[in-house]
Amino acid sequence: MKARIHITLKAGVLDPEGKAIENALGSLGFDGVNDVRKGKYIELEIADSDETTARDNLTRMCEALLANTVIENYAIDLEA
Amino acid sequence: MKARIHITLKAGVLDPEGKAIENALGSLGFDGVNDVRKGKYIELEIADSDETTARDNLTRMCEALLANTVIENYAIDLEA
Repeated sequence: MKARIHITLKAGVLDPEGKAIENALGSLGFDGVNDVRKGKYIELEIADSDETTARDNLTRMCEALLANTVIENYAIDLEA
Repeated sequence: MKARIHITLKAGVLDPEGKAIENALGSLGFDGVNDVRKGKYIELEIADSDETTARDNLTRMCEALLANTVIENYAIDLEA
């Protein structure tokens, strides 16, 4: 089963990398770009065939390793 | 208009960071996880109100700055 995980900074957490992208886009002449937020995107293949089990395991992976839950949110998408 | 951009390594390009995540998950006891690929996820607000113009501008941003098109693919999602 294929899983896609988005890890994004929580609202209110400063995102200097996003800010740098925003400034760089401005320097390149792209105007009107705002609120750039940079996150992580992880694709993986999980052996669990049951969606509930897979989601449970992925949640534990996010909590234990993939996301820093103090400052980051995560979202899990599963594809059969 | 809100845009979401996914930047992923092309097939065949080695992903040492994804491999490290895979190994770390294995060390933590999560078995059956394979093909971990780590990409980037960028959210931004673009001023263009027309979807075609917005998509054109975002494509140029990806080509010019956001993605390294030699080794990375990008996908653009627009939300009205």
